[in-house]
Amino acid sequence: MSILVVGSVAYDTVQTPVGNRGDALGGSATYFSVSASKFEPVSIVAVVGTDFRQEHFEMLTSHGVDISGIESVKGSTFRWSGVYGADANTRETLDTQLNVFAQFTPQLGVNHRQHSYLFLANIEPSIQLDVLHQMQRRPKLVALDTMNFWIEGEREQLGEVLKEVDVVLMDENETRSFAGKQNLTEAAGYIREIGPHTVIVKRGEHGVLLFRQGSVFTAPAVPLRSVVDPTGAGDCFAGGFMGYLASTGDLSDDGFRRAVVLGSVMGSFAVESFSLDRVQSVSEEEVEERFRLITELTRFKPLLDRETLPFSDTEHQVH
Amino acid sequence: MSILVVGSVAYDTVQTPVGNRGDALGGSATYFSVSASKFEPVSIVAVVGTDFRQEHFEMLTSHGVDISGIESVKGSTFRWSGVYGADANTRETLDTQLNVFAQFTPQLGVNHRQHSYLFLANIEPSIQLDVLHQMQRRPKLVALDTMNFWIEGEREQLGEVLKEVDVVLMDENETRSFAGKQNLTEAAGYIREIGPHTVIVKRGEHGVLLFRQGSVFTAPAVPLRSVVDPTGAGDCFAGGFMGYLASTGDLSDDGFRRAVVLGSVMGSFAVESFSLDRVQSVSEEEVEERFRLITELTRFKPLLDRETLPFSDTEHQVH
Repeated sequence: MSILVVGSVAYDTVQTPVGNRGDALGGSATYFSVSASKFEPVSIVAVVGTDFRQEHFEMLTSHGVDISGIESVKGSTFRWSGVYGADANTRETLDTQLNVFAQFTPQLGVNHRQHSYLFLANIEPSIQLDVLHQMQRRPKLVALDTMNFWIEGEREQLGEVLKEVDVVLMDENETRSFAGKQNLTEAAGYIREIGPHTVIVKRGEHGVLLFRQGSVFTAPAVPLRSVVDPTGAGDCFAGGFMGYLASTGDLSDDGFRRAVVLGSVMGSFAVESFSLDRVQSVSEEEVEERFRLITELTRFKPLLDRETLPFSDTEHQVH
Repeated sequence: MSILVVGSVAYDTVQTPVGNRGDALGGSATYFSVSASKFEPVSIVAVVGTDFRQEHFEMLTSHGVDISGIESVKGSTFRWSGVYGADANTRETLDTQLNVFAQFTPQLGVNHRQHSYLFLANIEPSIQLDVLHQMQRRPKLVALDTMNFWIEGEREQLGEVLKEVDVVLMDENETRSFAGKQNLTEAAGYIREIGPHTVIVKRGEHGVLLFRQGSVFTAPAVPLRSVVDPTGAGDCFAGGFMGYLASTGDLSDDGFRRAVVLGSVMGSFAVESFSLDRVQSVSEEEVEERFRLITELTRFKPLLDRETLPFSDTEHQVH
């Protein structure tokens, strides 16, 4: 069932240890929609300026993305500029120009209000909540991404929208910061008590943790020899994750686990190039090859039902 | 087949966010031997001062540890003091008093030279190499741990001993620092070219990476609600790892993968208390329960042989 995403469409200027790129197509909704569109049709609700290039509309359309919800208004498209250090997990924002994004007040069309899967990409929490309330009926699954900027500045509003979503995605620092708890298991428990039944903690090159009722799952990141640009990895993760769930409709624990693995696969492609260069061209064979790679990465012989480990009985405990 | 470990026996004074403990039994060889002794007999070669307490000899003996290679010399036992921040992955050393450890020149007895499994715990590389050369025949498996102090100060000597060992254990910063490569896959490849067929990268709460010929394996850390003291986690990991291999003799890739999981299990117990309090009392049932927990943590439905993922064919790539 098709997916609706609300978020940013942007032009990014990025420096990484590998190189740099100016005015590359970016934005949370852009990354998400191209990634998710590999698995299920996506409709995007966003705003761009009159400088948004026709080729980028065409690229989205070529992936089957419904762009009828992208409003084009007078002014410049959102621009972000940042630099990554040697450690891809840390980045510094050099400049943020909200431009037309500053007045973004999404009005969902009739066709967009009926989607069964909703991804609230990283935007102001009050907008996320407003979009959710515009839906004609409660979607089957609502997932939300956010960032430290909102956690620090719009904590109350963020808490309100969290009450109404199913899945939260945060990186590990955001999870700790929002929950005020250093321990991720405790922090995820804190967030789940607010409302979401599922908390996904993104740890960059250290992979992903999935916390659900009575279940914790860990997926590794694909070990890559070359990381070109980490921008958008989290949104491409979310795209693979939501794409799998919407395509299969499998909201069981097994479904969520596979969705996380597919998310990791899509995140791994995202970082291999600037912008969406690599993700755009990913084939079914490449996705499946990397899915199998994660299977191989995590494979070990479990203990059989009555199997025991070697254990010495020389211990005579001293207390 | 029994295991020989050469390393430090120490008294640690530790501050963590949870509390503090003075003159707690520690040292790399101590942590390793108690952990490994759960699975296979261990002989320890180390030095202590005349202040080393009888109850600590007895504790080791009660775990079947052969302490005949612990030399007791006039002076004080090695003392280390450190403080951990909120992030358990970082610590600051407040004080190091080598004491009798400064003159540690291990002389292996006849019975110790015949062990088939040798763990060279974190000590000066030239001592590690000397011990290896004292062995009557090349052990079946030699593993080595080290630290930034030797990587920075004794790089050449460390390189020499690396040529002759099978398995290297380093944390992720040490791996990067030694290899001069930020990318862990590349860094592990660099180290493997020096000699070791296996490189284990310890990432604390982010788990472990195992790099072998044509094989990469990732094991998560057990998500714990309470981390009391991270000291010794790496050595307890090594103890579970070597203990499994020595006990089963299974040096296949499957064997190494299980050994890494068992190492993660033992590391998880280590951090749940100060000193060896928790590791000492661990039962077979607890070890197996946590082994099964890691199985559950990493479980997802792999793609079957001819199974495909859902994939949209709406893409018409734009270049």
